[in-house]
Amino acid sequence: MDERRHGGRLEVPRPEPRASGGRVAIGVDLGGTHARAAVIDGRGAVLSACKRTLSDRTPEAVADLLAAATHEAIRDAGQSEANVAAVGVGAAGQIHSGTGVVAVGPNLGWRDVPFAELLRQRLPWPVLLMNDLSAAAWGERSVGAGESADDVLLYFVGSGIGSGLILDGSLYEGSGGVAGEVGHTKVVPGGRLCGCGEQGCLEAYCGGHNLSLRVAEAIAAGRASALATVKPPVYAADIERAALAGDGLARELWDECARLLSVSLANYVTLLNPARVILGGGVLLSCPELRRTVEARVFELALRASRQGLQLVDARLGDDAGVVGSGLRALESVVPGAES
Amino acid sequence: MDERRHGGRLEVPRPEPRASGGRVAIGVDLGGTHARAAVIDGRGAVLSACKRTLSDRTPEAVADLLAAATHEAIRDAGQSEANVAAVGVGAAGQIHSGTGVVAVGPNLGWRDVPFAELLRQRLPWPVLLMNDLSAAAWGERSVGAGESADDVLLYFVGSGIGSGLILDGSLYEGSGGVAGEVGHTKVVPGGRLCGCGEQGCLEAYCGGHNLSLRVAEAIAAGRASALATVKPPVYAADIERAALAGDGLARELWDECARLLSVSLANYVTLLNPARVILGGGVLLSCPELRRTVEARVFELALRASRQGLQLVDARLGDDAGVVGSGLRALESVVPGAES
Repeated sequence: MDERRHGGRLEVPRPEPRASGGRVAIGVDLGGTHARAAVIDGRGAVLSACKRTLSDRTPEAVADLLAAATHEAIRDAGQSEANVAAVGVGAAGQIHSGTGVVAVGPNLGWRDVPFAELLRQRLPWPVLLMNDLSAAAWGERSVGAGESADDVLLYFVGSGIGSGLILDGSLYEGSGGVAGEVGHTKVVPGGRLCGCGEQGCLEAYCGGHNLSLRVAEAIAAGRASALATVKPPVYAADIERAALAGDGLARELWDECARLLSVSLANYVTLLNPARVILGGGVLLSCPELRRTVEARVFELALRASRQGLQLVDARLGDDAGVVGSGLRALESVVPGAES
Repeated sequence: MDERRHGGRLEVPRPEPRASGGRVAIGVDLGGTHARAAVIDGRGAVLSACKRTLSDRTPEAVADLLAAATHEAIRDAGQSEANVAAVGVGAAGQIHSGTGVVAVGPNLGWRDVPFAELLRQRLPWPVLLMNDLSAAAWGERSVGAGESADDVLLYFVGSGIGSGLILDGSLYEGSGGVAGEVGHTKVVPGGRLCGCGEQGCLEAYCGGHNLSLRVAEAIAAGRASALATVKPPVYAADIERAALAGDGLARELWDECARLLSVSLANYVTLLNPARVILGGGVLLSCPELRRTVEARVFELALRASRQGLQLVDARLGDDAGVVGSGLRALESVVPGAES
């Protein structure tokens, strides 16, 4: 095991300030229920942030809301609008960053929405649209747990499951903008129905939302479990706690979850040979037993050559990863030399 | 299925001649039993080729043999040695192309062999060492079935199983030079022992060498099968023929092979969202039923968004892919502007 270099937080020096000429960008994290707009400087620092609840999810209403949040965040940061260089938006789903179109936005119920254009009509800056986990991966790579590594895989297990890829130092988004959809790799072909409409996806088994559903389904089907006393929704941490206390249902779900996630991540490492895997998302980061098991098994199951020198680390930017990454990408896209 | 655009050979116009200034390179395909050295021009044409059998597999003996084959190929092509710009070598295994070291060369029994240096001691040109399937992927992408696509996955199922990756127009080799080792993703954790020493690898189930072993093992264990009458080694095409004729053992192996390869390739497509998958290797290309089944299932199992616009095509350069790809990479590495 001497080849195994892993651990929690890496102590890496912060990068030099990027040559953004003192200009800032807006980074937006657009979720299914909330949106957050933040002012990001050239070093990836969050100068201010403004969170809003989405009451009306039509594209026009969301664009209005984000435009207002953007102006508020700029005021809160004490910045002039003239000093803002660009706006970056990270959103869940299939995003064509080149054209600025949300092809499929499952959380918002959007299809083929030219959202960058809607924002451009409301804001005087260039707008860059991207996938939320690509944004988070870029944020972690720039100023978080991925610093100083050129091949980085952000593996995210939260309510949903996904990933973001930095390969040879560049963000890789795939030919259609949907690379990294590890939550929808098939682990039980023909199996459990996933929210995406397909069957047997990893997310249908191990995503936080589905874990909660699976507990509810088992209890409704008459299965005895300590989890029946937990007020829904049952969180992953509840399941891990019950599994450690010897609850049968929880143990079963947890063992399966560890097995599926370990094989998934190990095979991903074998395919892409990253230098560093950043683990993110509430399911992985709130459940230390699961986290430990997955890490240990990845170092058993990934091809030996691909795990030499591999580091598994925890995400470091938390909820800021998306706004930092989308803001920095936007800044780098318009300020020459801003890219580190 | 209107999103499904697939088919056999794509008719893509040949690229313009690359600006190699009329210079040529040597491309070498170094296998476990044979090596082939070829003279490659700036358009990827094979001007001459010289094949040798490896009798002595020590690194020094192989380097001597390749040096002789290189000089012979140059003479056969009627080229002057002064017109040769560089030598590219594609070899199976874990290759550190930056340092020119074969870290693990399973077919040759090599470990940590500075093979580029051994060749440089014998030849007056720069030497670029790379993985054989990376070389093949680059060859197909440059002048074969991958032309005009920026995100290309070469999926190779022959005696062994592997892949090569062109992402955003560049060859992706991974942080340690071993990206793409799909043959060693785990499909049956704890399962059949693989030649790599690990268990449950895709190659241990579906690689041509292992398919042949599995037939022999089943027959030795008393299983009745028409394949018992085939003189070993049993080839994949023999198994497909017997399966189509109703042989039970062959049908079982073949169904499993189709299932494992389909899920593997579908998940690979979901992760990387390539525009084009190039299918290569004797097992896939000599077995039309398997080829059809895998293609059909990939279009069912890959995430819908990742299969939009996806093309599955057959490799076009055959055995030349490796020498063309390694030769072109070498040429591009030393002749400014040669890269298209």
